[in-house]
Amino acid sequence: MNKNRLEAFSDGVLAIIITIMVLELKVPHGSSLQALTPLIPVFMSYVLSFIFVGIYWNNHHHMMQLAKKVNGKVLWANLHLLFWLSLFPFATAWMGENHYETWPVVMYGCVMFMAAMAYFILESALKKLHGPDSEFANTFGTTIKDTVSCLAYVVAIGGSFITPWVGIACYVFIAIIWFIPERRVEKKIA
Amino acid sequence: MNKNRLEAFSDGVLAIIITIMVLELKVPHGSSLQALTPLIPVFMSYVLSFIFVGIYWNNHHHMMQLAKKVNGKVLWANLHLLFWLSLFPFATAWMGENHYETWPVVMYGCVMFMAAMAYFILESALKKLHGPDSEFANTFGTTIKDTVSCLAYVVAIGGSFITPWVGIACYVFIAIIWFIPERRVEKKIA
Amino acid sequence: MNKNRLEAFSDGVLAIIITIMVLELKVPHGSSLQALTPLIPVFMSYVLSFIFVGIYWNNHHHMMQLAKKVNGKVLWANLHLLFWLSLFPFATAWMGENHYETWPVVMYGCVMFMAAMAYFILESALKKLHGPDSEFANTFGTTIKDTVSCLAYVVAIGGSFITPWVGIACYVFIAIIWFIPERRVEKKIA
Amino acid sequence: MNKNRLEAFSDGVLAIIITIMVLELKVPHGSSLQALTPLIPVFMSYVLSFIFVGIYWNNHHHMMQLAKKVNGKVLWANLHLLFWLSLFPFATAWMGENHYETWPVVMYGCVMFMAAMAYFILESALKKLHGPDSEFANTFGTTIKDTVSCLAYVVAIGGSFITPWVGIACYVFIAIIWFIPERRVEKKIA
Repeated sequence: MNKNRLEAFSDGVLAIIITIMVLELKVPHGSSLQALTPLIPVFMSYVLSFIFVGIYWNNHHHMMQLAKKVNGKVLWANLHLLFWLSLFPFATAWMGENHYETWPVVMYGCVMFMAAMAYFILESALKKLHGPDSEFANTFGTTIKDTVSCLAYVVAIGGSFITPWVGIACYVFIAIIWFIPERRVEKKIA
Repeated sequence: MNKNRLEAFSDGVLAIIITIMVLELKVPHGSSLQALTPLIPVFMSYVLSFIFVGIYWNNHHHMMQLAKKVNGKVLWANLHLLFWLSLFPFATAWMGENHYETWPVVMYGCVMFMAAMAYFILESALKKLHGPDSEFANTFGTTIKDTVSCLAYVVAIGGSFITPWVGIACYVFIAIIWFIPERRVEKKIA
Repeated sequence: MNKNRLEAFSDGVLAIIITIMVLELKVPHGSSLQALTPLIPVFMSYVLSFIFVGIYWNNHHHMMQLAKKVNGKVLWANLHLLFWLSLFPFATAWMGENHYETWPVVMYGCVMFMAAMAYFILESALKKLHGPDSEFANTFGTTIKDTVSCLAYVVAIGGSFITPWVGIACYVFIAIIWFIPERRVEKKIA
Repeated sequence: MNKNRLEAFSDGVLAIIITIMVLELKVPHGSSLQALTPLIPVFMSYVLSFIFVGIYWNNHHHMMQLAKKVNGKVLWANLHLLFWLSLFPFATAWMGENHYETWPVVMYGCVMFMAAMAYFILESALKKLHGPDSEFANTFGTTIKDTVSCLAYVVAIGGSFITPWVGIACYVFIAIIWFIPERRVEKKIA
């Protein structure tokens, strides 16, 4: 079964998710510079989410480059990932418009965490399909980065009940560690 | 005639349909967890429709993998399918925002039923084009699943006038039986 | 220069145009069947415009199948076509929400006419690029259908000042004559 | 690493950006010709931004045609470009709805300038990847057009504080000089 349409469909959904998030930057009525001030937190959460979608797109791109085939389970695992990613615009807007209060920050973390789990499930489905001795299985293992970001999400969600800035700090931290694409993969597909 | 653009265009429309549906999850004004409560029925109908769009995308993907060619009739049969699918966001939102009352649930069933008919017409157009002895015609026949879901739609639409929960139960039932992709197809294109 | 990205980009824009038009079907507040009544004219104009976008997509698909190459002029001629098509959702919504009054019907005709002109310019640019003896130039000439629809647009725009139903009738007529894809092209690319 | 998905994803984002901009043309309530009058400045800024997105798409298309490969840095440089382009709908709408007042015109210029810088960074990343002796590096150098438009942005942003029409004039001027695709590139990929 061909992986091209899975890539094309995922690209389409991710492209729309990114552009839907920007719609939350509602055009202000005034024309002064001050009219933009209330948009600053919305803009900041847009930037954060844009980077996260970028990370998912980059890693999805890398992973699918090494995938040789897909099956029905992979298609659904991919749709499952897209489902959680499709909630990013909602979670981003709720957080941005409420100036980073507790529940929106917690919700944002939950959606991010579920997307991370969904990505992990997709990777596992591809690994199982390619077999334990495949190049795919050898390239993608659980890394320290996976474990650290998983822990960071837990800290973010729990810590946000003390102050939401714990959550925000964790999300920025996770974005930074994932910003760099997988070197081991880049070498393989150079 | 080339099938690639038909696939690409359908992927585009389906990707946008999925993401438009999520726009109905309007960002609440409050930041408490209770502010999300009124969104629960909207969210549930989003999940249901997401799964249906996923089923259509998966089956469309499978069907087009075995199609060797397309013609003018197939292009229009495909556009006809996309037309009914494009009404999913409307039907989903109307049902979700009215807490599953009779008419919205009936309307949802009608749109789903028309999409199922359109899919059947597309399959027939492809079968006719490939000829009765083609691999395509041998792989895709009317199955018991087709008949059962057709009946389930009729029960859903009729039963919703007694209580809309009959309709909802039928839609969930149809989603479950279609969740599993066509094994006979997967074998062929393995 | 490669035609694939031109096709992909056009597919993307057309897919979004179709789905944006459906957004004008605003979800009604009530849950009775009567709540849908005010949507009927909006729905009818959506159906009409969906068919027009479908016609453009089909013909664009056919034309690009026979195109062997593109150049800078073709890229801009294509963007020019997409510009007028991008105004379809606006023209469709204005017409549907105003129950087919004079100016909205005239405006709809003007946008359609400009799109038709833009399509003609794109065809000419491709013809010039491929040369007068190419298969492309031999396949696509000005047909009686082109002349008739051009006249029909003029009648539609002028006649709408008597009664908008002249315009509507002309649009339906044009949709019908273009519904059938170009047989001469289908034969060539069979 | 394959450049196809980078192209497909960029096409998707650009297609959506164009179509989101048209959503700012909000359907007026009246049906007279006068009801369209307040839309004229919004429409004019839509036309301007459509041309700019068209220019970016065309040049991106040309540049990627000559690119033989991409790497992680190129993926992020491309996402960075898409980020600034994704702010076009906001900047366009703010400018159009405020009838070209100072701050919106300045903001529009800033977003355009950042997009131009991002494009330059993407070009540099591709140049570095292909090496100084590659066909890519030989084709794309800093041209007089780059320098002139950079200066024009500075004049536009500064001059808008005297009168916003300086800004508008500069944007129109930049659009005109970039309208013509790169002849040196077209020759190479003829």
